[in-house]
Amino acid sequence: MTPLRIAIAGLGTVGAGVVKALQNHRALIEARAGRAVQIVAVSARDPNKSRGFSLEGIAWEPNPLALAVRKDVDLVVELMGGAEGVARDVVTAALSHHKSVVTANKALIATHGLELARLAETHSVALALEAAVAGGIPVLKTLKEALAGNRVLRIAGILNGTCNYILTTMQRERRSFEDVLLEAQKLGYAEADPSTDIDGWDAAHKLAILTSLAFAVPPSLATLRVEGIRDVTLQDMQFAEELGYRIKLLGMCSCVEGRVEQRVHPALVPISSALAQVDSVYNAVAIDAEPVGTLFLQGRGAGEGPTASAVIADLVDVARGRASLPFGVEVSRLVPLESISLSQHQGTYYLRLDVLDTTGVLAHVSDTLREVGISMKSILQKPSHHGQLTSIVGITHSAGEADVQRFTKEIVKHTQIINNARAIRVEE
Amino acid sequence: MTPLRIAIAGLGTVGAGVVKALQNHRALIEARAGRAVQIVAVSARDPNKSRGFSLEGIAWEPNPLALAVRKDVDLVVELMGGAEGVARDVVTAALSHHKSVVTANKALIATHGLELARLAETHSVALALEAAVAGGIPVLKTLKEALAGNRVLRIAGILNGTCNYILTTMQRERRSFEDVLLEAQKLGYAEADPSTDIDGWDAAHKLAILTSLAFAVPPSLATLRVEGIRDVTLQDMQFAEELGYRIKLLGMCSCVEGRVEQRVHPALVPISSALAQVDSVYNAVAIDAEPVGTLFLQGRGAGEGPTASAVIADLVDVARGRASLPFGVEVSRLVPLESISLSQHQGTYYLRLDVLDTTGVLAHVSDTLREVGISMKSILQKPSHHGQLTSIVGITHSAGEADVQRFTKEIVKHTQIINNARAIRVEE
Repeated sequence: MTPLRIAIAGLGTVGAGVVKALQNHRALIEARAGRAVQIVAVSARDPNKSRGFSLEGIAWEPNPLALAVRKDVDLVVELMGGAEGVARDVVTAALSHHKSVVTANKALIATHGLELARLAETHSVALALEAAVAGGIPVLKTLKEALAGNRVLRIAGILNGTCNYILTTMQRERRSFEDVLLEAQKLGYAEADPSTDIDGWDAAHKLAILTSLAFAVPPSLATLRVEGIRDVTLQDMQFAEELGYRIKLLGMCSCVEGRVEQRVHPALVPISSALAQVDSVYNAVAIDAEPVGTLFLQGRGAGEGPTASAVIADLVDVARGRASLPFGVEVSRLVPLESISLSQHQGTYYLRLDVLDTTGVLAHVSDTLREVGISMKSILQKPSHHGQLTSIVGITHSAGEADVQRFTKEIVKHTQIINNARAIRVEE
Repeated sequence: MTPLRIAIAGLGTVGAGVVKALQNHRALIEARAGRAVQIVAVSARDPNKSRGFSLEGIAWEPNPLALAVRKDVDLVVELMGGAEGVARDVVTAALSHHKSVVTANKALIATHGLELARLAETHSVALALEAAVAGGIPVLKTLKEALAGNRVLRIAGILNGTCNYILTTMQRERRSFEDVLLEAQKLGYAEADPSTDIDGWDAAHKLAILTSLAFAVPPSLATLRVEGIRDVTLQDMQFAEELGYRIKLLGMCSCVEGRVEQRVHPALVPISSALAQVDSVYNAVAIDAEPVGTLFLQGRGAGEGPTASAVIADLVDVARGRASLPFGVEVSRLVPLESISLSQHQGTYYLRLDVLDTTGVLAHVSDTLREVGISMKSILQKPSHHGQLTSIVGITHSAGEADVQRFTKEIVKHTQIINNARAIRVEE
């Protein structure tokens, strides 16, 4: 067989991992691919940087767009990142020039995936995305191929390793969000500008892709509600633990009666659940589907090795001619469904009220709860002295998001006794 | 596109699940398969049995071998089971007649997989096995496709739901093995003759397939050491728990310096580990590979829904023309490697000694340990009264299997003080 001739745009951490894996496991990959996978050309910012591997015999293109038009290239691996600009241009150009594309670019796919998938179909080439979601966990392959005979009901995932590292470290070491974030930045686990991660956008891009695959809808960021982890306090983590929960940043989607809900936010999960056990930089995805039941996948979600593993899986699928469609089905079969907004969400909630311990405070709280129609499953009042600040925390029975928002707004009007109110959704 | 025309041999629990899923999720499966998947003919023991679905318009063949030669059939789904006899004949005949085969038959594949894979290659048809291992968990697809760029180092799995149900129930409800087994038989979780499950052979068949995929070796039951769960006592479970472990039946394989080790036996796993959390009828597989790191997959490992899910995934792969080779690479690339026998195993061990609490008993134990060259990491002696029976339990530092066997043989020679000695391997 002729080799699969590839070009790589971007030689950062992941790009380096791909080159190293292709060089280190050449025989094994060739056996699984049924042919050689040969790096023909690369492009990156700095041609002189030492990367720990040899680029001998590989053409260097200063402009990544040049990779997309080279006659000796069958496939372009895009590892530059970013929803717009040069990454989008390179992928578009490559597909237009009848070259398959393998990409790890979640922002690009969540934003322009539909148009790129259409382009790939038109030119009968592959557009492979496994590396875009959850790094080394083969969750796209699982949804598109292994669960092809299933109706997906719900997905809940820990999709951002930076957030999970921060939350795990806060919980384990009893440290504040700000403190752990600073350390994560020093260690290189968080970026200098950490907002894409900690405000939930990275997880949201990944979730939009998962939702699309799960329910055969076009990926949509517009209908996706995102809340990050900046407001998660150590205090809430400790209260949650006393109530039997951990706090995780979850990406969740579900489809009920033809309506799709997708949301990214911190959530309480039972300590005994598999998701609660996912520590540090690990990612995990729990899929409820019929008839398979619950499937749970856990692995490293980012970084050189795991992402390179996903990129090479895609390369081997293309080499074997067995790459599945980017969204599992033809673009024409992706049909938008009505979306459920978060304000229509129904579920249980963790509530925390910072109160002045005075006579009648609990009655006030109870009255307000009754007024908005929320009942509590469990309540925990921390021991304190009369006249001191303390916290009342609890878990509600099933309640509507709108009612909960109304409650937290109403209750803080009692400014003399209620200092602060916080609600966090619970996922059982 | 023309439909994929299939025949199903065997309409037990799984066969019924496949028919139901194909009927219930027809549109979804057609979208993912890119064409219709049409049941043309079936064969089962009893044509008159009520199965909860309609077989109208589907031909009934009293002899399953007839399915393999029908001109209107592209693919045969074999769900009869058994390493020999009619299942083997049907699969062989189907492949020989240029029909693809989807099978859930682990015993057949573990025993005759190589010859069947060769037949499939010769006739350029697919032989798809996902349903043979771990039910709804796509572990074969993960090993063959998602980890195509990885070197697998080690796999440890809970591969038999019956055993895991029994062990979980013993541990949770503090009941004996015999007691729980009886109940499991009543509930239908264990067969009337439970030996295939509880003596570890079902897990061994699955492990032999996993080992083959992981290390590109022919599946080999001959080099696989199997111990079942009949000797696991509630007492050992409780001691293990005090030491921070749970007892699970594990299937494990690894490849070190070109030598393959594969074994199925009860093992202590740390309570905090993902495998320890796998309860009841769930299966799970932990894969250590380079560069992906550790990947952990958990799901339902048997029964109608999960197994049907795997069968349909294989059907869709065949319909799309993207089924991977049964063992991931061409049969000619499967090369036997030297195997490590269990007597060469090196690891930590749980030891339990039933002793008479007399002066000098601990010295006797210590002396014997020193003689065979085993040192202990932790020891737990249960409080007792002088002259009474008690237990000394502990975890060794790394020790050789042969030394441990020598120890348990030696120590019971002190018949006046040592009643019984038991060693169980620990997997950290």
